[in-house]
Amino acid sequence: MREKFQGDLATIAGLLVEMADAVRTAIRQATGALLHSDAEQAQQVILADQEIDAHYHNVEEKVYEVVALQAPVASDLRLVLTSLHIAGDLERMGDLAGHVAKTGLRRHPAPAVPEELTGVVREMATVADQMAGKISRVLSTPNVTRATELERDDDAMDDLHRRLLATILDASWSHGVEAAVDMALLARFYERYADHAVNAGQHVIYLITGKAQNE
Amino acid sequence: MREKFQGDLATIAGLLVEMADAVRTAIRQATGALLHSDAEQAQQVILADQEIDAHYHNVEEKVYEVVALQAPVASDLRLVLTSLHIAGDLERMGDLAGHVAKTGLRRHPAPAVPEELTGVVREMATVADQMAGKISRVLSTPNVTRATELERDDDAMDDLHRRLLATILDASWSHGVEAAVDMALLARFYERYADHAVNAGQHVIYLITGKAQNE
Repeated sequence: MREKFQGDLATIAGLLVEMADAVRTAIRQATGALLHSDAEQAQQVILADQEIDAHYHNVEEKVYEVVALQAPVASDLRLVLTSLHIAGDLERMGDLAGHVAKTGLRRHPAPAVPEELTGVVREMATVADQMAGKISRVLSTPNVTRATELERDDDAMDDLHRRLLATILDASWSHGVEAAVDMALLARFYERYADHAVNAGQHVIYLITGKAQNE
Repeated sequence: MREKFQGDLATIAGLLVEMADAVRTAIRQATGALLHSDAEQAQQVILADQEIDAHYHNVEEKVYEVVALQAPVASDLRLVLTSLHIAGDLERMGDLAGHVAKTGLRRHPAPAVPEELTGVVREMATVADQMAGKISRVLSTPNVTRATELERDDDAMDDLHRRLLATILDASWSHGVEAAVDMALLARFYERYADHAVNAGQHVIYLITGKAQNE
């Protein structure tokens, strides 16, 4: 029974790896679409988000099945239900990648990101990309150190967020209110993506060690 | 056993009612603090959010206990796990009320909301307040009609959101980029509050009817 349960947990972890890889691709492609005014790629990200949502439901179904068929003891139950938190965070990261893609579409074919912000947006996207990559790797190869790195990545994201806001609030900003509002919301999408990655990482640590990190 | 399970579900619904009432109070007080530059009330909202988070963990613990001790059959399991979705949405609504309160604190003692936007912000807060109230009432007295009203409320919120954006993007906007960015983010907090209320409402319908609304 215990072995069967471990196998089920591994299956669920495998589904979560696929989700993490999908949301990583999503934020990368969304940023590409945004910076290159590529409407076709933006649409692909929006379609891919539907697959990520479907993936989320698959994880949920698998978790329900394991709980119903195996009636795990309290500590194992907690472990398997943790994967719902991870899937929930990843699902939300997919949504946020979709919002990034839509930000590009709203201005298409004009570029959505003013020249002086393309650097910081690219850096935010790189941090987001790396964070999703770490979640995926830690799920496939348990490594608590790498999981805890996510909080440092989140600090880097916060710094980039502040840098972007400072640019749009500077007296030299010449792109008007609408572009400023769009860019502030865009920065928030990346920042929320990173927040969910940190949450997911904390739950992954619990999943792989059975111990909560921050409690 | 079945009776015991029904009793447990009622206990969980009771905890969710308390959470819904708390996030309703939170958005009301956060808006008051924001519109009256009341730093003390803003701090209360931020403190209350910690209680809402604790509440969320209580719901989670109770759900785990019920699942572990009673090993409900598949359909009942699905029902009890639905309450985790509702609690998750309510927890997030508490966070968003906290963000509204913090928007006021950032400008304190200056007013954060320019005069011409106080009306629309008050209307957004009223819709948010009513939505949380409906979740609470539907959880205590099952009523599918009232739960489905939440989507109409969400349409009203979207209209208000558009109205607020039109004001800050209008050529007559005289409050500069920073106030525009703050107000766009503020509108997003109310709008996300409403989105989570709609999600919670859909799960409440499942909880009270055993049938998913949108699947």
